[in-house]
Amino acid sequence: MTNVKQIGFIGLGIMGKPMVRNLLKAGYAVTVHDSREDASNELAADSAVPAGSPCEVARRSELVITMLPDSPQVSQVVAGKDGILEGAQKEATVMDMSTIAPATARELADLCRPKGVDFLDAPVSGGESGAIAATLSIMVGGKAEAFDKCLPILRTLGKNVVHMGASGAGQSAKLCNQVIASLNLLAMSEGLMLATKSGLEMEKLLSVVSAGAAGSWMLSNLGPKILQGDLEPGFKVRLLQKDLRLALAAAEDLKLPLPGAALVHQLYRSVEAAGKGEKGMQALVTAIETLSGSSLTGTRSA
Amino acid sequence: MTNVKQIGFIGLGIMGKPMVRNLLKAGYAVTVHDSREDASNELAADSAVPAGSPCEVARRSELVITMLPDSPQVSQVVAGKDGILEGAQKEATVMDMSTIAPATARELADLCRPKGVDFLDAPVSGGESGAIAATLSIMVGGKAEAFDKCLPILRTLGKNVVHMGASGAGQSAKLCNQVIASLNLLAMSEGLMLATKSGLEMEKLLSVVSAGAAGSWMLSNLGPKILQGDLEPGFKVRLLQKDLRLALAAAEDLKLPLPGAALVHQLYRSVEAAGKGEKGMQALVTAIETLSGSSLTGTRSA
Repeated sequence: MTNVKQIGFIGLGIMGKPMVRNLLKAGYAVTVHDSREDASNELAADSAVPAGSPCEVARRSELVITMLPDSPQVSQVVAGKDGILEGAQKEATVMDMSTIAPATARELADLCRPKGVDFLDAPVSGGESGAIAATLSIMVGGKAEAFDKCLPILRTLGKNVVHMGASGAGQSAKLCNQVIASLNLLAMSEGLMLATKSGLEMEKLLSVVSAGAAGSWMLSNLGPKILQGDLEPGFKVRLLQKDLRLALAAAEDLKLPLPGAALVHQLYRSVEAAGKGEKGMQALVTAIETLSGSSLTGTRSA
Repeated sequence: MTNVKQIGFIGLGIMGKPMVRNLLKAGYAVTVHDSREDASNELAADSAVPAGSPCEVARRSELVITMLPDSPQVSQVVAGKDGILEGAQKEATVMDMSTIAPATARELADLCRPKGVDFLDAPVSGGESGAIAATLSIMVGGKAEAFDKCLPILRTLGKNVVHMGASGAGQSAKLCNQVIASLNLLAMSEGLMLATKSGLEMEKLLSVVSAGAAGSWMLSNLGPKILQGDLEPGFKVRLLQKDLRLALAAAEDLKLPLPGAALVHQLYRSVEAAGKGEKGMQALVTAIETLSGSSLTGTRSA
């Protein structure tokens, strides 16, 4: 097992950019690519090396990381024209850290295998702040040897790194995470709306429910934002909707009804219909505001 | 403001019994009553004094605490024949620690007021284990002076004691707590079912999702029980259903749609239909098992 030194990184958005900076800080040589050229140039100032295509990135890298919006983009970048597989070194590893369909992750692993390339699915949880602070949770699927080889790099990017199992297992774990997280958001939204309509002092209510059996990360971290009328992302409605779509599709394949997740998905559609797709996921509360014709957010700005 | 020394306690069930023991341990004189005589006699062995009726309890007590199943029982014990108000001392306080309708709490406060009796609603969260360990969260509604007078006693019974506001505010806060808690249970149930159907290693999945943005008290405390197939209460399905019924009724009065809470209430109906009303609230997962014809609980007994 050799130590990886040359890393390629494709997809330099809100998440990708700070992740590349953490890799550079740790001393890795990083070749970068993004469909928007200015994103690559920005990181060149931090000593990353821009490349013209995913294929070119792959030629220069032992490990290629992708961080892209959804399954089609990842498939294109890995297996399309001028894609990673056209330039991949023998015994290279491709690690996709986007959130995509578990089935697509398994298909890409199958496409990589005959070329001697390992494919890991390694989606993350923790958002932009976790990417910047290198405190992401990372759920990994794929061969144990490939996971072991990438572990030092994963530890540069996050702190809770778990090998979940075979290809697709990382993505499956991420989708479970999103189902739970989004229903915890609904829990908070309905509970806080009932509280405000009941005329309770919201700060007191939040403190007492957060401390007990109703407590959650959402309540502790996004509850105060809701009370302040702060709907900025964090993690965007549009992206959580994509993840819920993937979760519901995976559940459909498994013949598993998820009535709660389906409800949250529909309620977020109302949030999107109101033009709030780029707001933070705590904007779910605005769907309950709309349903009841009452307001909570912003009525108690600190 | 005098220090309360003589306490009456009516309702000696799973919660009431350990609460009385904590009061006795703290040195209070406690007169007890329960419709089942053997419950009173059991506590007499711990030096509580049994009384034949709520009225008789009230004659001997500066503060009367009630801990009963639901609104009708509390109304009967406070304002019915041989009830507390028939025997209440001048300047006595009645503190109802049951979970009942906020509107009923307000009505009872209105009935007590002309007799010079203060009424506090003070529902608790934390279940049997919290009652035994005196770590209950207690949400209190009613006059500030009455709250202050009872605070030393409340601190004997719980550790997170908050005065939420006027009469009914304690009950309203409790119902918000139950809405959030029950939807967090649905979040866990759907997430864990998706994980098990996806073939993930459940202990790993639970540990990774508990640590991040999907984390909740439910996941940390009842998730492991679900994986072990342990559906024992804790807090019973039947009682959470009663609380959800109260929450949905309060929301109806407030013209507030709570689609998630309504869904959880319906799913628990399926749990009750399967004869699991006396199981712990984590049995919600069995509704998702039933919907999908697959099993999770008990398949991985530790």
